[in-house]
Amino acid sequence: MFSGAQVSLYPMSGNFAEIILNAVKGLDPYRDVLRIETDDISTLMVGPPDVLFSAMRDLFVIAAKSGEHCVLSAAVSRGCPGEPDDPACGATLREGDTSPLAERIGAALATVLATPTKDQAVAAQFSLYVMGTDSHMDEIYGCIDFLKRSGTFDRSKNFCTRLRGDAGTVFATLQEAFCRFGPPEGHVTLDITISANSPTKA
Amino acid sequence: MFSGAQVSLYPMSGNFAEIILNAVKGLDPYRDVLRIETDDISTLMVGPPDVLFSAMRDLFVIAAKSGEHCVLSAAVSRGCPGEPDDPACGATLREGDTSPLAERIGAALATVLATPTKDQAVAAQFSLYVMGTDSHMDEIYGCIDFLKRSGTFDRSKNFCTRLRGDAGTVFATLQEAFCRFGPPEGHVTLDITISANSPTKA
Repeated sequence: MFSGAQVSLYPMSGNFAEIILNAVKGLDPYRDVLRIETDDISTLMVGPPDVLFSAMRDLFVIAAKSGEHCVLSAAVSRGCPGEPDDPACGATLREGDTSPLAERIGAALATVLATPTKDQAVAAQFSLYVMGTDSHMDEIYGCIDFLKRSGTFDRSKNFCTRLRGDAGTVFATLQEAFCRFGPPEGHVTLDITISANSPTKA
Repeated sequence: MFSGAQVSLYPMSGNFAEIILNAVKGLDPYRDVLRIETDDISTLMVGPPDVLFSAMRDLFVIAAKSGEHCVLSAAVSRGCPGEPDDPACGATLREGDTSPLAERIGAALATVLATPTKDQAVAAQFSLYVMGTDSHMDEIYGCIDFLKRSGTFDRSKNFCTRLRGDAGTVFATLQEAFCRFGPPEGHVTLDITISANSPTKA
């Protein structure tokens, strides 16, 4: 499998460069496992999905704790036929990710429930895209069922689903949506937006 | 068809709220044609794809002309099976969008070439997702062929393609990628990021 993300961090502050450089230190514990490359638009992270979501979470939480309005935007992808398999990303998804939809929903809920919080409130929205299969909407509706029971569900919007809650719980919810739905070897992507400290009332 | 986008504008400035409110005035000429709804994460725009891309372009160009580092991020979608058909979005795509891939590439190139510039340099990257068909990679490779000949192609990255050039030309390229590739009645989405005035060298 090949999995990774193009990740961007946007602090709405004149001090944005310093906030980003400080937050990037949060990626240091992951540099042995993830391939990380930065340009002027985004940071590429390639590696196993669980490590990927932990790294994005830590990056964002450090930035958000600055108190400034910050947004993380990412295109997350697994199984893209245009990318080579990479053993560093894991050969397949986790055990159990090929089970029937109802069991996968249960496993995803248990994982979210067991995830530690990070003492940082966030609002998020994301879209799940499942390619190369005629049954992609079944997987998406299964994922929506999981989201509605996850404790982070805020509301459905056109083209995406809104979440809210603690950063730890919300990133765990996104990780489960990414890993548990869509074919294990299929091409699945997420388009995610996470926001903290917005001066606009939700 | 149902088409639209969730659009966010991120000025990396302590003055971000004022820059956003000023840029939003650029949407006024489109309010008769587009349905526009804003919350604290994004602005929903629903309507015909060509109007949609013009509106996003004008929104972004006004913000970028502030001179601050600004980014526009959007999830653009057409034909989502979970959304109701909306006559305001156009019944189908434009004439010619069902023709063979080579003809669509030629038409897309002609449209980009004929589009006026906006005197604003931008860098962009985007992913094209085509759902519900086994041949989605053929359409994506056809789109990449168009991009490489569009004059805006910068380079391929993991999970996305980088563009650069004038805002008018780059938004026209994105619009053609969105409208000309993937089945006319299919579910097609773009995940786009447009950046201006970055202090980081590309």
